[in-house]
Amino acid sequence: MNGAESLVHTLLQAGIDTVFANPGTSEMHFVAALDRIPGIRCILCLDETIVTGAADAYYRMTGKPAATLLHCGPGLANGVANLHNARRARSAVVNIVGDQATYHRPLDAPLTSDVEGIAGPVSAFIRRAESAASVGADAAATITAARSFPGQVATLILPANTTWEEGGVVAAPHAPAEPETVTSETIEQGAALLRNGKATMLLLGGQALGEVPMRVAWSVIRHTGAKLLLERSPARLARGRGRVQAERVPYPIDQGHAAFAGVEQLILVNTPPPVSFFAYPGKRGQLQPEGCEVFTLSTPEQDGATALAVLAQILGAPDVPPADPGPRPERPQGMVTPEGVAQTLAAVMPEQAIIIDEAISFGRGLFPGTYAAPPHDWMMLTGGAIGDGIPMAVGAAVGAPGRRVIALQADGSAMYSLSGLWTQAREWLDVTTIIISNRKYAILLAELAGVGANPGRTALDMMDLTNPALDWCKIAGGMGVEAARAATLDELGTLLAASVARPGPFLIELIV
Amino acid sequence: MNGAESLVHTLLQAGIDTVFANPGTSEMHFVAALDRIPGIRCILCLDETIVTGAADAYYRMTGKPAATLLHCGPGLANGVANLHNARRARSAVVNIVGDQATYHRPLDAPLTSDVEGIAGPVSAFIRRAESAASVGADAAATITAARSFPGQVATLILPANTTWEEGGVVAAPHAPAEPETVTSETIEQGAALLRNGKATMLLLGGQALGEVPMRVAWSVIRHTGAKLLLERSPARLARGRGRVQAERVPYPIDQGHAAFAGVEQLILVNTPPPVSFFAYPGKRGQLQPEGCEVFTLSTPEQDGATALAVLAQILGAPDVPPADPGPRPERPQGMVTPEGVAQTLAAVMPEQAIIIDEAISFGRGLFPGTYAAPPHDWMMLTGGAIGDGIPMAVGAAVGAPGRRVIALQADGSAMYSLSGLWTQAREWLDVTTIIISNRKYAILLAELAGVGANPGRTALDMMDLTNPALDWCKIAGGMGVEAARAATLDELGTLLAASVARPGPFLIELIV
Repeated sequence: MNGAESLVHTLLQAGIDTVFANPGTSEMHFVAALDRIPGIRCILCLDETIVTGAADAYYRMTGKPAATLLHCGPGLANGVANLHNARRARSAVVNIVGDQATYHRPLDAPLTSDVEGIAGPVSAFIRRAESAASVGADAAATITAARSFPGQVATLILPANTTWEEGGVVAAPHAPAEPETVTSETIEQGAALLRNGKATMLLLGGQALGEVPMRVAWSVIRHTGAKLLLERSPARLARGRGRVQAERVPYPIDQGHAAFAGVEQLILVNTPPPVSFFAYPGKRGQLQPEGCEVFTLSTPEQDGATALAVLAQILGAPDVPPADPGPRPERPQGMVTPEGVAQTLAAVMPEQAIIIDEAISFGRGLFPGTYAAPPHDWMMLTGGAIGDGIPMAVGAAVGAPGRRVIALQADGSAMYSLSGLWTQAREWLDVTTIIISNRKYAILLAELAGVGANPGRTALDMMDLTNPALDWCKIAGGMGVEAARAATLDELGTLLAASVARPGPFLIELIV
Repeated sequence: MNGAESLVHTLLQAGIDTVFANPGTSEMHFVAALDRIPGIRCILCLDETIVTGAADAYYRMTGKPAATLLHCGPGLANGVANLHNARRARSAVVNIVGDQATYHRPLDAPLTSDVEGIAGPVSAFIRRAESAASVGADAAATITAARSFPGQVATLILPANTTWEEGGVVAAPHAPAEPETVTSETIEQGAALLRNGKATMLLLGGQALGEVPMRVAWSVIRHTGAKLLLERSPARLARGRGRVQAERVPYPIDQGHAAFAGVEQLILVNTPPPVSFFAYPGKRGQLQPEGCEVFTLSTPEQDGATALAVLAQILGAPDVPPADPGPRPERPQGMVTPEGVAQTLAAVMPEQAIIIDEAISFGRGLFPGTYAAPPHDWMMLTGGAIGDGIPMAVGAAVGAPGRRVIALQADGSAMYSLSGLWTQAREWLDVTTIIISNRKYAILLAELAGVGANPGRTALDMMDLTNPALDWCKIAGGMGVEAARAATLDELGTLLAASVARPGPFLIELIV
């Protein structure tokens, strides 16, 4: 058995059956082993940012890691932005990077690079295989690290000769990690805060954004009068009819501060303290008011779901069903507005849809309009590295076959990862992409206005995506994805309804 | 004056007048300063791999650095692959990366990352500005480092508050570095080798690939009977009628070894010793024969052009004009072959064309067919990180207005940097892109065959770009670049001739 074969068997025995791949020469023996040994689905992506964004979303949907297959340091570098997002999502990714043979590295051939250096900023764990005999154990250690609760990016560097040399040994990783338990003392302290009569808010993130823990949190706030807020960019959030209705921390800094106004005690459940996305001159980066007590019920690495349940029990909070969101909206007509898009989504999305939200500035405010939609999951850009939407749609669709993915995709951000549309067509994935074509970097125009300058031609040109305007129907068509344009809510509703009723990908260019 | 204004003035005083930009929120004050202070051309790129690839090619054409404008660690990461290529090209790049404000970094907002860690593997120099007062001096130090001969990637990290705070001070970098001189003793040693009657080869790279040093090298080999070879992937090579005709080190390892067969002495001029691109089981990585003496006349950091001239003088080698390449070929007809494409290029390219060669496997063997073309420059993928062709075409066209850029672009590689087509349209650059649409990763199929396996469906699917086939005319049209398809050499010739006769970009999908 060569090293590559031991790697494939180790992956399979650990239950890893999906590889998102963009291979090169140094990975050919790994590819050959994937070919010889059945059981792993290999999904070709035409650049690495698709590979890593898809692996992240796959984990968000399945709770088990996919493997990547990347080519040398530069191939890894192309995937780093979405590994940054995966790190912020706390997703498990078994990130496999081929490299020069051990004895070829010192010759400094053109593709030789500092792979550990490139992997370091996004990897919680890095292992370089030293020999074919070590590859299995190295892979097992990487899988164990990736599965640390709630999930980590773990990188395995595979010198080419460790894949082709004989002597491979299959190895078993440790079982997936359980979350760390929150102590009774901590939960009692949280209960005491909720009883002391001060203005209190629960801020939920990570694991606590599932249907059950959110319902428990809802019961707690109904019992105690506390407020409830969700972290700004959930990796995955259970939403829709029968689920708790709650807003997220707003992105703009002033609205962010306003969301916490008057809060005297902030209780964090599986989320760090809230901070603004960027600094602004003269504004505070921490979003909670000065003097507000910040109490961590559970860190993202802890079992906040159980802690919430115990908290509710200690408080004697009875189970309260989520509020009725009212009737499901009808499909709206007329001009395209964010509210109208939300209403269209609520009216048309099928049961258990997966919404990918890289709508950026246009996407703010979509939540209230979709509370009455059927139950669905909502995934966001967690790390702010734009270009994750199309890749996430790939990974979510692969991870959750039978569920429709609807990707709300800002046009500027879509330009970073176009080739993912090809993979959607190749794998015939059930993805409807709605390109929100405002033909500008709207978020930057707002930020530039915030600078206080009266922007001139040079600055405006750097925010402007006209001249030429992007034609999304042509771009999608060039990648094998059928597409059509919508300029009104009627057209959006019609196209969206048609696309979710049939298999395979579709793209809607929504002119806004 | 704020820090951003001091940065713009420092760039301008150093003669840097071109910025390839993909800005984000943390760069808004820099954008505002570029807006207020005239003199710098800002070129918007829709992802960072375009920014860095363009900056590399701009330097290769102009000999002076452009600046980049990148957004935080993930934005930088998206540009790392082409910075790797720039590092291998020894190009000067003033790589400017915005980051979180100094006091906001500790809050670990979502886009916070280890910027130094990401920059490290591709940067010869990294400086983080500490305050508005230091920005000018930091920029000057970065420019000085970038201009170290022959050129380096130097990275300046700009925390947002150092751009908006007052107290900026304009600074001056040191004058561009002169190359290190080669000692007389070394040149005498080289001359002695060329006189001792053994089988000797000159291998030229870097600065020695200019028209004049190549002519001197040609005179030397004509006088001494030595052979001449060029490095595998020149950053820029002077070619065409009136220039020296010479081949490059072949990419396939066996052909690489064959190119050096029988060589007893290898004299390196501005290039490291030749090694294979990758390791292969049982094959030697060094390309010169075992026992061959390897002598470095000049390193890439030294003045090999002058050393060659002195060498010729010591040897008494008279100036010899390059060989006559024969008549300029006629436009060929019929089936598309590499030789036919070369002949078409030779027949149609205008004087002083710039050829960008990311043709990968199809592109091997284009050299002999283009010796009789008009004088032109030829630029290659230096670091093996594919996806550099479209960005290099952007940078070359910006750096050399009035000269036609013809980009020979493999289809698989083009998928990494599609959005550069939009920048070509936006800036109305004189670029003709020829997509070599073979609809597969041909190079990997060859490599997989080399593995010795009989590839099955899983492996073949990972090399195959059909299902769906990419429609390059649609993709280009979606980005605002007019395009047409050629399936014969006649059609290629007609389209190429038409495109070089008019301004602006054009794309030819060449079916092969």
